[in-house]
Amino acid sequence: MTRYTYTGLAAAALIAVPQLGFAQDAPGFDEIGPYIMTTLLFCMAGFLVFFMAAGFAMLEGGLVRSKNVTMQMTKNIGLYSIAAIMYWLVGFNTMYPGDFNGYFAIGGQTVLDPVGVAAADAALDYASVGSDFFFQLVFVAATASIVSGALAERIKLWPFLIFVVVLTGLMYPISGSWQWGGGWLSEMGFSDFAGSTVVHSVGGWAALAGAIVLGPRIGKYGKDGKVNPIPGSNLALATLGTFILWLGWFGFNGGSQLAMGTVGDVSDVSRIFANTNMAAAAGAVTALILTQIMYKKPDLTMVLNGALAGLVSITAEPLAPTLFGALLIGAVGGVIVVLTVPMLDKLKIDDVVGAIPVHLFAGIWGTIAVIFYNSDASLTTQLTGIVAYGVFTFVASLIVWFILKAVMGIRVAEEDEINGLDMSELGMEAYPEFSKG
Amino acid sequence: MTRYTYTGLAAAALIAVPQLGFAQDAPGFDEIGPYIMTTLLFCMAGFLVFFMAAGFAMLEGGLVRSKNVTMQMTKNIGLYSIAAIMYWLVGFNTMYPGDFNGYFAIGGQTVLDPVGVAAADAALDYASVGSDFFFQLVFVAATASIVSGALAERIKLWPFLIFVVVLTGLMYPISGSWQWGGGWLSEMGFSDFAGSTVVHSVGGWAALAGAIVLGPRIGKYGKDGKVNPIPGSNLALATLGTFILWLGWFGFNGGSQLAMGTVGDVSDVSRIFANTNMAAAAGAVTALILTQIMYKKPDLTMVLNGALAGLVSITAEPLAPTLFGALLIGAVGGVIVVLTVPMLDKLKIDDVVGAIPVHLFAGIWGTIAVIFYNSDASLTTQLTGIVAYGVFTFVASLIVWFILKAVMGIRVAEEDEINGLDMSELGMEAYPEFSKG
Amino acid sequence: MTRYTYTGLAAAALIAVPQLGFAQDAPGFDEIGPYIMTTLLFCMAGFLVFFMAAGFAMLEGGLVRSKNVTMQMTKNIGLYSIAAIMYWLVGFNTMYPGDFNGYFAIGGQTVLDPVGVAAADAALDYASVGSDFFFQLVFVAATASIVSGALAERIKLWPFLIFVVVLTGLMYPISGSWQWGGGWLSEMGFSDFAGSTVVHSVGGWAALAGAIVLGPRIGKYGKDGKVNPIPGSNLALATLGTFILWLGWFGFNGGSQLAMGTVGDVSDVSRIFANTNMAAAAGAVTALILTQIMYKKPDLTMVLNGALAGLVSITAEPLAPTLFGALLIGAVGGVIVVLTVPMLDKLKIDDVVGAIPVHLFAGIWGTIAVIFYNSDASLTTQLTGIVAYGVFTFVASLIVWFILKAVMGIRVAEEDEINGLDMSELGMEAYPEFSKG
Repeated sequence: MTRYTYTGLAAAALIAVPQLGFAQDAPGFDEIGPYIMTTLLFCMAGFLVFFMAAGFAMLEGGLVRSKNVTMQMTKNIGLYSIAAIMYWLVGFNTMYPGDFNGYFAIGGQTVLDPVGVAAADAALDYASVGSDFFFQLVFVAATASIVSGALAERIKLWPFLIFVVVLTGLMYPISGSWQWGGGWLSEMGFSDFAGSTVVHSVGGWAALAGAIVLGPRIGKYGKDGKVNPIPGSNLALATLGTFILWLGWFGFNGGSQLAMGTVGDVSDVSRIFANTNMAAAAGAVTALILTQIMYKKPDLTMVLNGALAGLVSITAEPLAPTLFGALLIGAVGGVIVVLTVPMLDKLKIDDVVGAIPVHLFAGIWGTIAVIFYNSDASLTTQLTGIVAYGVFTFVASLIVWFILKAVMGIRVAEEDEINGLDMSELGMEAYPEFSKG
Repeated sequence: MTRYTYTGLAAAALIAVPQLGFAQDAPGFDEIGPYIMTTLLFCMAGFLVFFMAAGFAMLEGGLVRSKNVTMQMTKNIGLYSIAAIMYWLVGFNTMYPGDFNGYFAIGGQTVLDPVGVAAADAALDYASVGSDFFFQLVFVAATASIVSGALAERIKLWPFLIFVVVLTGLMYPISGSWQWGGGWLSEMGFSDFAGSTVVHSVGGWAALAGAIVLGPRIGKYGKDGKVNPIPGSNLALATLGTFILWLGWFGFNGGSQLAMGTVGDVSDVSRIFANTNMAAAAGAVTALILTQIMYKKPDLTMVLNGALAGLVSITAEPLAPTLFGALLIGAVGGVIVVLTVPMLDKLKIDDVVGAIPVHLFAGIWGTIAVIFYNSDASLTTQLTGIVAYGVFTFVASLIVWFILKAVMGIRVAEEDEINGLDMSELGMEAYPEFSKG
Repeated sequence: MTRYTYTGLAAAALIAVPQLGFAQDAPGFDEIGPYIMTTLLFCMAGFLVFFMAAGFAMLEGGLVRSKNVTMQMTKNIGLYSIAAIMYWLVGFNTMYPGDFNGYFAIGGQTVLDPVGVAAADAALDYASVGSDFFFQLVFVAATASIVSGALAERIKLWPFLIFVVVLTGLMYPISGSWQWGGGWLSEMGFSDFAGSTVVHSVGGWAALAGAIVLGPRIGKYGKDGKVNPIPGSNLALATLGTFILWLGWFGFNGGSQLAMGTVGDVSDVSRIFANTNMAAAAGAVTALILTQIMYKKPDLTMVLNGALAGLVSITAEPLAPTLFGALLIGAVGGVIVVLTVPMLDKLKIDDVVGAIPVHLFAGIWGTIAVIFYNSDASLTTQLTGIVAYGVFTFVASLIVWFILKAVMGIRVAEEDEINGLDMSELGMEAYPEFSKG
């Protein structure tokens, strides 16, 4: 096929001219404009959220020791790829089932709109299937990325990836359907705009279950109860990852408006951009100031996690708050991270990158904070949702982790952990020329 | 709330259907299309310019020594976050004041459009407040990033961040209002499309003032007048940063068209993309060839800065030039960087990343070059604007830097500088396993 | 000029109000909407594909040894910049010639639409020249990036850049015109949607010719026939590069729909997004499983190249396949990479980053796979196109490489290669504080 250009080719007759869709009796922009804009929103927000996979990989790769970086990269590109396949195979239609009792229905493979779908056959009040599928798919991958960070530096590759299969194909879609698939929590009035609970807490609960079953890294907690900090190997990379996640979050929250074809919708998308940015900034500044006060020295990893906690916090309701409200919500997220990272250590739950404080604790906060700005939300319903997602995801995850532990083992041998997973499991160092690791 | 999908849910009745905005007497796309497209332009350009914060962080993190990388990361995420808060608190409405004498008016907090704003209440001839605010906000953050690069490796964290508070909340918005807020320079006919002067020179002047007050790094200038090069620790990171900045510049210049809803406007946005890209390419190639000729070896850091100087140069007028004009403008930018980096060293002004040549000198050139392609611009007016921004920003910055120096000191102790700011100020190395730094 | 804001400035009268394009007798959105959307598609897809330049740089910079990283960065920013200039000077109008015999016509400089082009003067059935030029330009840069990876760690800078001049100014545009310029292959019915052959194989053939003429790196192939693996210096960077390329590919394939202003077109763009993502995921998972089976340990560099091979494979026909079809096409791409990387080594063709398996071999596969999903394509025609591009590009490249070898030499001295190109050719290390090189 020819790529048509302005010069007017001799071959122009061969070309499928774009405006043919506007033949005499075709619908005009008043009818198709919203569909086009919303489909574009999903494509654009989708590639932004896709890029969060790189953000998680860089954040986690920067926060682990250099001897485990190749493994962390392998897990992250692996989990994204598996999520993409599982969500097509079963996840998308499990989460958004056509025939649904409100609790549970397993769907089949995703089928896209036909090529060049006619306006008459398209969901003109929404968007194309392909864009919707792609947009929802990148969300489930984010959930899996959260788990990969918490369990770094000691979990075996394949059990982790098998957990991802179950998480992205079944667990996340089933619980997701309760809310976004029009299930019982949605009917009850639970409110979670872009997934503080549905995405982030779910990832956090799965990570928490895994961290408990897996146990802490060797040397993290001394016999005397002392917590030994294990510094990340590359804070420039971790910072890059945080900025990429922040970038992706504009798609994460903005795309969750699910429409861009009216004055109100596109304005709301932009309102969400502004609020999302504000919450992240507030989380970062709060962590910066708080670590200065508490430890006399600002802590960059806390600042990075503060920004992320701000983002998670605003995710349940990025639209309704004022900018000042977004600032408050994000700031509380920053406080939560700074205060709960040491708390997990006291419980000897070893979360390598701080994923549980950021995604679970700030996710709970964000879900509760909805009630301050959204008059349709009630504390009871929000807590019901939080508990429901927590119980289901934590218990289901525990079961899967225990099965994996029993069947194939989930933790590398002690010697392999000390030598680093890169050499023992993969035979390939990430920085073969630099590392003293 | 439910995420509506194509399958037609039982719960569909619950859903706020996107096309409701097109109820019987709602305005059609001929009326609302431009508003939607321009709001989208600001969102899209906004996230691209947001990502420049990561670009600056990586560029600067790559050009400092490894012992100062954590500090550079902390400064960059900190400054962006502070800029976001200050611009909301006072900056945006100071820069775009409603009741304005043309010189100075302090505004209050930014108030977004209401949720789901009706077409009748929206600025249909422009864009949503949220998108406009977000787009302008990411510009002010860029200004602050310029300062952070020049003053790296010796400035204390908190005085720097306090300077950012003043720069982003007051200095930049006040001088910005002269031009983009419809103030006296705008009325005089000064022309600066996307901010060669309003953004980049301003950052450069603030950096220059800081570099003079702060003094050079220990060991940079020998007692014999010899200039000791201090190589950056990670040129892959610096290259990544440059590419990210180049990417962001499509939003920086393209978004400054401020409209995308007509044939002329969207074509102009694309024209700006093409010209912006050409100027960057020309700046890079010029620096490549020139360093080959002058030093017999191409200098990567000069090539990176050459690309950036090309970008800064085209920023004052990315629309009017032909592609060949953009090439010439960018190429001169590349020449300026190669020639002025050594010049600053002769003056013993220590600019760690070359921010002053790139943003100030190329910014001045770009502002002058407007007269070659924009017949509405005059040399006198352009020079008036350049001088006005220079005097105001340089003097105001000097005053702030001197106050900070007097009140709390702006420079770390000699021993701390030698040991690196990461350990002395933050207690956290960026590359704890690698560095010999 | 003023930046108009919602507050209603005193200076508002100065402002070119966006909606002026909708004066009484101006065309409405039904007429101009498709032009606006397609121009936006090219701008958006264009910046995504632009960012692939960073992706290639990071991928290649991560896969070479640290002593050659500065050189790899210099080559990649240099080649992009040269491509941008050459494609303007001659390439674009050679590839999309107005007066054309179907085989060969050299065009002149690209001329953009005038500023603020009127609807009556614009290509309303397509998009603005600036957007089209920018979108096509970033493709040619990708071709050149492929060559840079394969020939890393031993080629001199300037001969490489001169090859890029010829490749991007003449070779790629001439052969590209056969298909996308409406030339003989297009008339014959050859089908290559986004460039598995036109872009990727061409880059691969040019790289193959170069690798043969240049010879392998010192120490890569032992006298006893043993292949010595030379590990990359930074797998985190290589992973980042792969994610960036994956991101950019949404623009690469999605933008190649060349239209976004109808229900069918925008749905097709989203369908392409979903298929592109699936093929990449399948390529990655396939390589993960296959290297586990073959070598007992998953190989991250193979997984990265597997994802890329999946992307190249789907590029010839990202629209027609179902998601399952995309999975199969991508999975075969992953298999190809895992099997052909060792094959090249047996032939002692030293391809540093695996560019030839990924871009050439998977590109051939993708071009053949078109026949399974596109009933307009025939095996004979597809093979004709593959062979035509192969013969032309390989022979022309060989000639250019031999001329460069004869005239100025293309390979650095043995001692310089051993010491690393960074110190010998550029005098600047990428990681001066870390490397044991």
